[in-house]
Amino acid sequence: MPSGEDDLIARYFRPVATAPGALGLVDDAAVLQGQGDDLVVTTDAIVEGVHFLKDDPPDTVARKALRVNLSDLAAKGATPTGFVLTLALREVREAWLAPFAQALGEDVAQFGCPLLGGDTVSTPGPLMISITAFGRVPPGAMVRRDGAKPGDHLVVTGTIGDAALGLDVLKGGAAAPGSDTRARDILVSRYRVPQPRVALAQAVREHASAAMDVSDGLMGDLAKLCAASGVSAVVNAGALPLSAPARALLAERRVGLEALVSGGDDYEILCTIPENRLGPFTDAAARAGVPAAVIGTIEAGTSGPRLFDGTREISLSRLSYSHF
Amino acid sequence: MPSGEDDLIARYFRPVATAPGALGLVDDAAVLQGQGDDLVVTTDAIVEGVHFLKDDPPDTVARKALRVNLSDLAAKGATPTGFVLTLALREVREAWLAPFAQALGEDVAQFGCPLLGGDTVSTPGPLMISITAFGRVPPGAMVRRDGAKPGDHLVVTGTIGDAALGLDVLKGGAAAPGSDTRARDILVSRYRVPQPRVALAQAVREHASAAMDVSDGLMGDLAKLCAASGVSAVVNAGALPLSAPARALLAERRVGLEALVSGGDDYEILCTIPENRLGPFTDAAARAGVPAAVIGTIEAGTSGPRLFDGTREISLSRLSYSHF
Repeated sequence: MPSGEDDLIARYFRPVATAPGALGLVDDAAVLQGQGDDLVVTTDAIVEGVHFLKDDPPDTVARKALRVNLSDLAAKGATPTGFVLTLALREVREAWLAPFAQALGEDVAQFGCPLLGGDTVSTPGPLMISITAFGRVPPGAMVRRDGAKPGDHLVVTGTIGDAALGLDVLKGGAAAPGSDTRARDILVSRYRVPQPRVALAQAVREHASAAMDVSDGLMGDLAKLCAASGVSAVVNAGALPLSAPARALLAERRVGLEALVSGGDDYEILCTIPENRLGPFTDAAARAGVPAAVIGTIEAGTSGPRLFDGTREISLSRLSYSHF
Repeated sequence: MPSGEDDLIARYFRPVATAPGALGLVDDAAVLQGQGDDLVVTTDAIVEGVHFLKDDPPDTVARKALRVNLSDLAAKGATPTGFVLTLALREVREAWLAPFAQALGEDVAQFGCPLLGGDTVSTPGPLMISITAFGRVPPGAMVRRDGAKPGDHLVVTGTIGDAALGLDVLKGGAAAPGSDTRARDILVSRYRVPQPRVALAQAVREHASAAMDVSDGLMGDLAKLCAASGVSAVVNAGALPLSAPARALLAERRVGLEALVSGGDDYEILCTIPENRLGPFTDAAARAGVPAAVIGTIEAGTSGPRLFDGTREISLSRLSYSHF
């Protein structure tokens, strides 16, 4: 006579728990066998109305919940090995849970990161999904935030600012009327479904002196990396990788550069690459199929990172997005 | 220029992150170094209004959030090694966060289980704390639910039903008027602050054929253990370990036995001990200072576990508590 929670787990989540250590989700705990490597642990939660919108489709919510964590693992140079899931639900609704679990299962297969266990709780409040994800690195090889050195190149993957514009589109903001349907779809998709740079993990591990994922805004996250490393940085605005829709909105002056470099939800990798590693790193990124742009340089000093348009410094009123 | 979240982490949680692998909480991830053992992973979340009450003091909320996870680790035979915390807050309020973090720090020290990392998110809804805790066991030594064999003794630690009565007291239910102040305090304390049986982990690991923690009701959790092991069980009602306040309420017929054996939040260990291990196990429990009572026997069969008062079977309308 299974309880509501047991039934829910058996129906929706057991198929996603493909690792032997998950014990078919019938136990209270999972096992991660020691393999002589280090385990990298990261936790990120998303809350309805805060990190995703009430009307976001359940499949994109599932993907975002897992992928924001996979993005962290990739930035640390770690290979995904599994995750545990806390799901806070107002109600058990087939129409929401079935596509959620289906999409989660697809991402589990795509990224080789199975469900190991979790907890499903009832809440009177907004939906919330908290995931703790695990990755493996050789002993001592996790890439930290605090290893950047003056002279290192500053590299970011993918494009910056699209997700913030996508959120703006969904909220009917300035970016909405300026875009055609296809551009809007691209931006919204970037907000709803991050593309974690798992394929770049090995290259980051082998070549980066410091790395983190960009989740709260490029300039704010760079400020954190600089503070942890005890360095400063200059960023060349002209080198920032922008998508075609972002470039169009910028050209029409519907959005400013600040919205792009301080907006959240990019889930790209920001890393610092020593001069003698830049060639091997960009080669590895190209082989992995991940766009990587050199956007600036690490400098000595403890002042915050600065953004330049040619020789003119662009002053920013905010660096990142904060929910508090 | 720290964001609200960074400031919050630095003020309240960095002092609790005493493990080297936490990297002072300045990184996106933590490291658990391989030590040749297996890592046991468990996740439990508590939600305001569901697993704790809005008026529960912040220090008891912190302890409950961590201890429900420590209870799982102990039941798996694992030694705690650290945890990650997801905290969903409506607002950043010193008067709540300071005692919460203070109590968490005390439990970290008491149980040797430091904070490794986490995520703090804003929510418009109820407070929620999700913890993923890690424990270590020698390779292959995690105690599972599925190892119980006919003839094994059924053992439970501590006393059963107090937490359910404590919740009843807080809600002004049948248990409230029947207890004196001291009894009420004992029961409420059992609801708010579980006593995880961390001291018994080694004995469980060395002697139990199966184990789990009792969190949703003794009989319901026993049913899960039996189902996982493919066995049945008989429980002797007269052998159930009850506290003095519970005995008094039972004697006055203010509460029935069913409320005790199906009520949630016990956080005791239920385990099965083979005949030839019972002596060593009870000796080890006594040395660890953990009360452990033999309450029944595992039997062959696949029917649900049964509760007997002498030769009379007590039928139960429910076995456990479910939030769904």
